[in-house]
Amino acid sequence: MKAAVLEALHEDLKIKELERPVPESGEVLVRLTAAAINHRDLFIQEGKYAKIALPCTLGSDGVGIVEDIGPNVGVGIIGQRVVINPSLDWGEQEEYQSRKFRVLGMPDAGTFARYICVPAQNISQAPAHLSDEEAAALPLAGLTAYRALFRKGAFKRGERVFITGIGGGVALMALQFSLALDAQVCVSSSTTAKIEKAVSLGADGGVLYSNSEWHKKLKSNFGHFDLSIDGAGGDSFARLLDIAAPGGRIVNYGGTSGPIKELSPQRLFWKQLVIKGSTMGNAEDFKNMLAFVNEHSLHPVIDSVFPLEEVNQAFKRMLEAQHFGKIVLRISE
Amino acid sequence: MKAAVLEALHEDLKIKELERPVPESGEVLVRLTAAAINHRDLFIQEGKYAKIALPCTLGSDGVGIVEDIGPNVGVGIIGQRVVINPSLDWGEQEEYQSRKFRVLGMPDAGTFARYICVPAQNISQAPAHLSDEEAAALPLAGLTAYRALFRKGAFKRGERVFITGIGGGVALMALQFSLALDAQVCVSSSTTAKIEKAVSLGADGGVLYSNSEWHKKLKSNFGHFDLSIDGAGGDSFARLLDIAAPGGRIVNYGGTSGPIKELSPQRLFWKQLVIKGSTMGNAEDFKNMLAFVNEHSLHPVIDSVFPLEEVNQAFKRMLEAQHFGKIVLRISE
Repeated sequence: MKAAVLEALHEDLKIKELERPVPESGEVLVRLTAAAINHRDLFIQEGKYAKIALPCTLGSDGVGIVEDIGPNVGVGIIGQRVVINPSLDWGEQEEYQSRKFRVLGMPDAGTFARYICVPAQNISQAPAHLSDEEAAALPLAGLTAYRALFRKGAFKRGERVFITGIGGGVALMALQFSLALDAQVCVSSSTTAKIEKAVSLGADGGVLYSNSEWHKKLKSNFGHFDLSIDGAGGDSFARLLDIAAPGGRIVNYGGTSGPIKELSPQRLFWKQLVIKGSTMGNAEDFKNMLAFVNEHSLHPVIDSVFPLEEVNQAFKRMLEAQHFGKIVLRISE
Repeated sequence: MKAAVLEALHEDLKIKELERPVPESGEVLVRLTAAAINHRDLFIQEGKYAKIALPCTLGSDGVGIVEDIGPNVGVGIIGQRVVINPSLDWGEQEEYQSRKFRVLGMPDAGTFARYICVPAQNISQAPAHLSDEEAAALPLAGLTAYRALFRKGAFKRGERVFITGIGGGVALMALQFSLALDAQVCVSSSTTAKIEKAVSLGADGGVLYSNSEWHKKLKSNFGHFDLSIDGAGGDSFARLLDIAAPGGRIVNYGGTSGPIKELSPQRLFWKQLVIKGSTMGNAEDFKNMLAFVNEHSLHPVIDSVFPLEEVNQAFKRMLEAQHFGKIVLRISE
């Protein structure tokens, strides 16, 4: 079968012909039709990830048809169109993952391939209103956004939400999820074009985070926020305390801008703020996320679709950071 | 009546003869027998507090006998020995205080006086097993510690707790409260003597925060912590993320060491940590705190007792930071 394999750090992925995997006990074999790329894939390629083991087929997001099953899996599942939950071995605790937790795609063989074997408990029926490309855009970003917004962020209908780095998959899913429950949402971005696109999706407005006074502009134009969803950290993070309403919550799911600096404890304790870290989600979060997408007929925002063979162009597009929405790979014979 | 008044910033308090206050509607007149000093009083003296209005009788903690009542207060309360809840106009929200919230003692006349008028809803019967000096040590520190530990920190019996800056009133109350529910507690301090005193109270051990590698020593000797209670912020705060167990909580109630620096978002989100700010507490927290102190027959740690007339010596002792426990003022005719 065809697979996009990272053989060594800082190299392009290579399209290889690998042996089709065979499902073990409790596993299903999925013939993949679409996958999506994530920053995680870039981090692995760049050596910026813990415990990298190569060569490995990358890819955390995948959609396809169940073609075969291993022992101890019911046959009813064969032929179903499924999305894959990329959280492996989350463990028993709701609040955090176990030591055995892994994200699908390194060290486990990922979704940038024609076939994949995954535990049967990690697949769910793909939402019927979504194309394969749309459904493939959902798992990692949708799961991360859902947990950050609802479980960790305790988002309630109609609240005021600030989302940093709009254009990224998680940020856009958080935008769509919160808008579906009548949130008033503002966003930040590096470009005016992305802010305008967010407004066209329903955001009230946004700020350029390159402007060091962005928090003042935001407060004077839009007031304070009940909840911020941030995937960046860095210098700007301290400003999220400034724009928070009393009792406000700030959820962080990523650190693309580096360490968080110069937080004021006085602001933290006097406003009685809550800062929470969140990563991925457990099986319950995944099922709830899919139910939410179905209930509200949400369509993930797709930036572009590349054939699997052009995976390196797809990576290049993400590196350039001009994308708005998920970058998807179409997988055919 | 006698009162210790701050007339101008950076000056000593002056013992003045003021007119005895008269209780208004809903208020009680308390003849104070003991008060306690807090860092807040020093911050006000040093001009490091918001909206300072002088001259003012300082003091947030007080114990005494109800001697008179204003209109709309039941007479049954007269003659009772009471502690005063120093949270004024907290408001309706459990999670944060209202804009009208004030801590007793600037701008409202405080407890460093023979008499004070406070809302009847702010007094509670003093725990019978405590002396006046002990009961006066309780309100601000006990309330802050109780809310930080239980409401914000979600402390559960037997958890592993790390408390910074042991010797301070809040830190010691958090130590006593958590030990009463079988916590395994470690502490940090500037001196070995204070760590040894904490161990004699029941702590497992401690570290000197002047040692920049304290977090490594702590982890190798004691493992990870479910909950940290911090009143400092500053450079050391980032280390609280290192020593946190997955899903761990960190509650901050003060910023004596300045801004929090160099927090790792990766540590925050991968461990799914929670950082919460907490300040003082509402009426429910205060009642629960008193009930807890009664149930477990806790005695607050008293560092020293000064007569009200020596309030400036008491301030000096707190400034020197050699105290372990509350510094109390005894108030007589």
